[in-house]
Amino acid sequence: SDWNLIDIEGEKRLEKVYKFPDFKSAVTFTNAVGDEAEKQGHHPALLTEWGKVTVTWWTHAIRGLHKNDFIMAAKTDEIKQSL
Amino acid sequence: SDWNLIDIEGEKRLEKVYKFPDFKSAVTFTNAVGDEAEKQGHHPALLTEWGKVTVTWWTHAIRGLHKNDFIMAAKTDEIKQSL
Repeated sequence: SDWNLIDIEGEKRLEKVYKFPDFKSAVTFTNAVGDEAEKQGHHPALLTEWGKVTVTWWTHAIRGLHKNDFIMAAKTDEIKQSL
Repeated sequence: SDWNLIDIEGEKRLEKVYKFPDFKSAVTFTNAVGDEAEKQGHHPALLTEWGKVTVTWWTHAIRGLHKNDFIMAAKTDEIKQSL
């Protein structure tokens, strides 16, 4: 796992950069993570660029990290492996 | 137009935040802009979050803004209006 624990204005977040060979496959991954987010009712920030997607998980309501964020981070890794 | 001219480590970029009522419609917009980007062969950064998408256009090769970025910014506005 290459998830980084970052701090945005005092709020802890989990962040990971996933690499892809092009823009299209990055968008496909964004959609797959977005679908899972909708299913779970927990939504990340997804920065889609040519060849990479930066995924960030945190829980707005507690201004930090909840167990669910770590579960979603693991699911995000599974999605990457499944593509 | 609410495009902002921003400066990222000396590189000028065009950035705009589009608002949506939920996560799903934000992802739909990301896909629509991504499709146009693929068609034009010019790719933005698309930050998808619950209720908003932040779109950033710039031209990596010249480390700044090209006429094409302004054309893509206008197309992005058209895509928003068409959804």
